[in-house]
Amino acid sequence: MKKTYLLTPGPTPLPPEICEALSRPIIHHRTPQFQAVLKEVAENLKGAFQTKNDVFVLTSSGTGAMEASVVNLLSWGDKALVIQAGKFGERWTELCQAYGIKPIVIDVEWGKSLDPQVLKETLSKEPAVKAVFTTLCETSTGVTSDIKAFGQVVRETEAVLVVDAISGLGAIDLQMDAWGVDVVVSGSQKGFMLPPGLAFLAVSKKAWKLVEESKCPKYYFDLKKAKKAYDKTDTPFTPAIGIVIALNEALRIMKAEGFENIFARHKKLADATRAAMVAMGLELFSSDAASDAVTAVRVPAGIDGEKLVKTMRDEYGVTIAGGQGEMKGKLLRIAHMGYISEFDIILGIACLEKVLKKMGYAFELGAGVKAAQEVLIK
Amino acid sequence: MKKTYLLTPGPTPLPPEICEALSRPIIHHRTPQFQAVLKEVAENLKGAFQTKNDVFVLTSSGTGAMEASVVNLLSWGDKALVIQAGKFGERWTELCQAYGIKPIVIDVEWGKSLDPQVLKETLSKEPAVKAVFTTLCETSTGVTSDIKAFGQVVRETEAVLVVDAISGLGAIDLQMDAWGVDVVVSGSQKGFMLPPGLAFLAVSKKAWKLVEESKCPKYYFDLKKAKKAYDKTDTPFTPAIGIVIALNEALRIMKAEGFENIFARHKKLADATRAAMVAMGLELFSSDAASDAVTAVRVPAGIDGEKLVKTMRDEYGVTIAGGQGEMKGKLLRIAHMGYISEFDIILGIACLEKVLKKMGYAFELGAGVKAAQEVLIK
Repeated sequence: MKKTYLLTPGPTPLPPEICEALSRPIIHHRTPQFQAVLKEVAENLKGAFQTKNDVFVLTSSGTGAMEASVVNLLSWGDKALVIQAGKFGERWTELCQAYGIKPIVIDVEWGKSLDPQVLKETLSKEPAVKAVFTTLCETSTGVTSDIKAFGQVVRETEAVLVVDAISGLGAIDLQMDAWGVDVVVSGSQKGFMLPPGLAFLAVSKKAWKLVEESKCPKYYFDLKKAKKAYDKTDTPFTPAIGIVIALNEALRIMKAEGFENIFARHKKLADATRAAMVAMGLELFSSDAASDAVTAVRVPAGIDGEKLVKTMRDEYGVTIAGGQGEMKGKLLRIAHMGYISEFDIILGIACLEKVLKKMGYAFELGAGVKAAQEVLIK
Repeated sequence: MKKTYLLTPGPTPLPPEICEALSRPIIHHRTPQFQAVLKEVAENLKGAFQTKNDVFVLTSSGTGAMEASVVNLLSWGDKALVIQAGKFGERWTELCQAYGIKPIVIDVEWGKSLDPQVLKETLSKEPAVKAVFTTLCETSTGVTSDIKAFGQVVRETEAVLVVDAISGLGAIDLQMDAWGVDVVVSGSQKGFMLPPGLAFLAVSKKAWKLVEESKCPKYYFDLKKAKKAYDKTDTPFTPAIGIVIALNEALRIMKAEGFENIFARHKKLADATRAAMVAMGLELFSSDAASDAVTAVRVPAGIDGEKLVKTMRDEYGVTIAGGQGEMKGKLLRIAHMGYISEFDIILGIACLEKVLKKMGYAFELGAGVKAAQEVLIK
């Protein structure tokens, strides 16, 4: 017998209600029955995005909605500013380059978050910038950006603020309207507790003006097409019907728990995980602005990070993530995002302790679990 | 009690094995467990596409893979030829226009299929054409194109032949390699008996040369990225994991039945449906080249076509499709594609008879069912 547990920053585990919803017989998408689902989804997504703007549902990975932001807001030759603090920040740069948009890149050291003052200074020197691209939770480093402060800076300019919240939305606070965020992008397989396959995209009025001017070529990701269909409670192309129906269930579950409670739960799980790591003598990768969605720690000296992740997964059934990009083999990333309870975190820490101990890392067995429990009992 | 039945040309009904696969706990996509699935899927998709070429799996609607064909094969200013015989043919034209490609459109009357001789003549007059775009089964009209003959014409030229087989693949015969087709596009929610959310795309060596030269901007649908990942049994972005796992099951089911048997089953169901329509005095929309995936008939004079479809669905639980585009309200489309048995067809015809009779259309009740049974007992 091997029981498996998923503690990765996407996909995240599915609640049984979601598994059930996914297993239902399929219905046709151009029916009153599916329209009722789309209508409820549209309403509840606004709650999750903390916005009054339309939230479009795309059938793609999260990257598809990132591409939709770039190609609908900008035109060839435009200037954009990219806050690049990890692998997913780099994706904004690559997307801009693919479409002939000139990215001014603010390179942030991996594991750090950008000082909003630097953003302000850069923007004041670059008045032609039309869009600022950033990341809510940089999954590759476990760092959360100060979106509220970025919003205060960008709303004073002509530029729009675009946030990749694929990782983090529905798990940590992002107040689209109150913070002045113009475009928020997310995906189904993280905070929303769904399988991958859907991406979401909310657009402010300020951003919609750019959509109307944009000359980037597009078709599948054309937001004008999406808007035209959305206004008739429809989608421009056949959507991933099954996942949309499951999304409706997920949003009901989230609404019932309440977003304030969800954010508090994630914060507590993150605090417990960070306390456990420190108690085990591991070094947090993101000391300031550590994300409440995923915790990144450095692999201790003398330990093979990739082997550690593989052993946890293949021998004990507990899947966490290793490092990506330049941090490959050097990081462990434990997600506490979505359908994760305090005891899932305990078992994840226990498994990490067991494998670290077997691999010869010196620490007091049980120290991590104890530290987490002390946070969780508060 | 209302029991529901789906006889639409996408989505098509899901076998219980597929519903079960969709309801499983999610697994991470960068694991040996998922790689084993991807490997089996890659192999079995080649069988379904009747090709030795790589078949890429994209997370999108079928239209995403159509866009991928256009943006990976061509560059701004290139000439393409579009065989436009219905709503989905028009999509090729729109896609070309969106990316600055000049489409030479062969407009085929809805309900008809193009004479390959016309294709030959047009191509000989337009030697600069780099790609010919066509549709296997034009779902909006219920017509199948003579792809084998198109292949014979196009293989003699520098151009590549690109077939939208979203509707039809896995239900009717399309021999990619033997017929000289360069790109075949398909989707999950038709012949493959899955929910929508995945698209497939196979590329010949001749077409890959164009991929290497193409200058259309792209990122999410970049086939070079897809190929690089594919060669490592990976995907460039988080795929719709759940549907990929279900695809693996669907391909196993299809392989077990055998593609020859699948095509024969679809032909028999189509023959039965067409015989039923004729016996009820209804006029087939596509008299020549009628598709074995979906049957289109004209709404008889004096009958409200949209009301007919709504009544079947909302009062009796049997969903068929009406007309699209210029044929809205004027057509009925009954699909016999995917997980459809002979008795599903019988019940669909029985429901159509019941509603037509109640709406005052004059015919002998039972004539359609009887005609279908006579075909099916052979």
